[in-house]
Amino acid sequence: MSGHFAKPIVQLIRELSRFPGIGEKTATRLAFHILKSPREEALSLANSIIAVKEQIKLCSVCYHITDIDPCAICRDSHRERDIICVVEGPQDVASIEKTGEFKGRYHVLHGVLSPMDGVGPDDLRIDSLVKRVVDGDVKEVIVATNPKVEGETTALYIARLLKPFDVKVTRLAQGLPMGGELEYFDEATISKALEGRRVI
Amino acid sequence: MSGHFAKPIVQLIRELSRFPGIGEKTATRLAFHILKSPREEALSLANSIIAVKEQIKLCSVCYHITDIDPCAICRDSHRERDIICVVEGPQDVASIEKTGEFKGRYHVLHGVLSPMDGVGPDDLRIDSLVKRVVDGDVKEVIVATNPKVEGETTALYIARLLKPFDVKVTRLAQGLPMGGELEYFDEATISKALEGRRVI
Repeated sequence: MSGHFAKPIVQLIRELSRFPGIGEKTATRLAFHILKSPREEALSLANSIIAVKEQIKLCSVCYHITDIDPCAICRDSHRERDIICVVEGPQDVASIEKTGEFKGRYHVLHGVLSPMDGVGPDDLRIDSLVKRVVDGDVKEVIVATNPKVEGETTALYIARLLKPFDVKVTRLAQGLPMGGELEYFDEATISKALEGRRVI
Repeated sequence: MSGHFAKPIVQLIRELSRFPGIGEKTATRLAFHILKSPREEALSLANSIIAVKEQIKLCSVCYHITDIDPCAICRDSHRERDIICVVEGPQDVASIEKTGEFKGRYHVLHGVLSPMDGVGPDDLRIDSLVKRVVDGDVKEVIVATNPKVEGETTALYIARLLKPFDVKVTRLAQGLPMGGELEYFDEATISKALEGRRVI
């Protein structure tokens, strides 16, 4: 379809199609939106893309994405220093921050152990986590990797690695998510919920 | 969610959320894709956005979008001059070109008559269509506006406007689309299909 447009449009559609989950149809729709939008709006988008590539780096302490190093969370003296929440990626930091329940600091692994995909401990920010635990006065490490096989494996690996040190390693509770109905949850979720049942 | 990221990311997510059909979640996913993608790829996307805004204009003959005026179709001497297909937008040109069945030229209205939205004949490229018919040796005008109320109204309006001139005004056939099953088509489509039934 895009072959019938002028070159700059075809090029833009091709670039937009590279996004995960964006097919040629959606890319065409987005390209036409850019074409119709005010000039300043389109240039502002282009500049934001450039700004992200030029200004975003990883925090040298926790490896969260940031434009200022250390990141806002690591710089915040009100955040507890003795509790670290370990997550797979920067988006997980945002998800946990959104709850407003966690007052400690983070450590972003940038992935999970996955031998199938050739991801080993050296590909993740695990060494630096151990260093933070050894160097600092860390009392608890919450391993908030995703409740999947790789996330579980990574959590167990980290727990074993931190065993020699005087630190509690915990994992987020597993069970039924809020909302929804029992009949739609899978057996694994219901098993975990049974296993972790609590007296009310 | 995006409030917990560094400013350049928040800004990019905000810009991406402006796209029709792109919510904050998808915008976040796209922003992270840009963040992770190679620098050249991201800069190339930014440049494509700028190029589209700076190089794309409307063809002075048919009002299709183009980077060279007149557009490739209007410049093509192999295309028939005496048949014009009238469409609502540039994407419709691409849809018809894709069939490879149409060898004439186009006229892009850039909208349809819609009193509800305050769109009247002066807001569309209708005057210039009449001028093309009057000036040129046009034998047929196919009004390929969408098979909706506004598209039908626009088609009737154009047909009436061109009545004084020696030109045949036609409309795309209506009926069942290819594929699918009868039980899933709406009554209006089935009515049109019955009305337009043909001897086999």
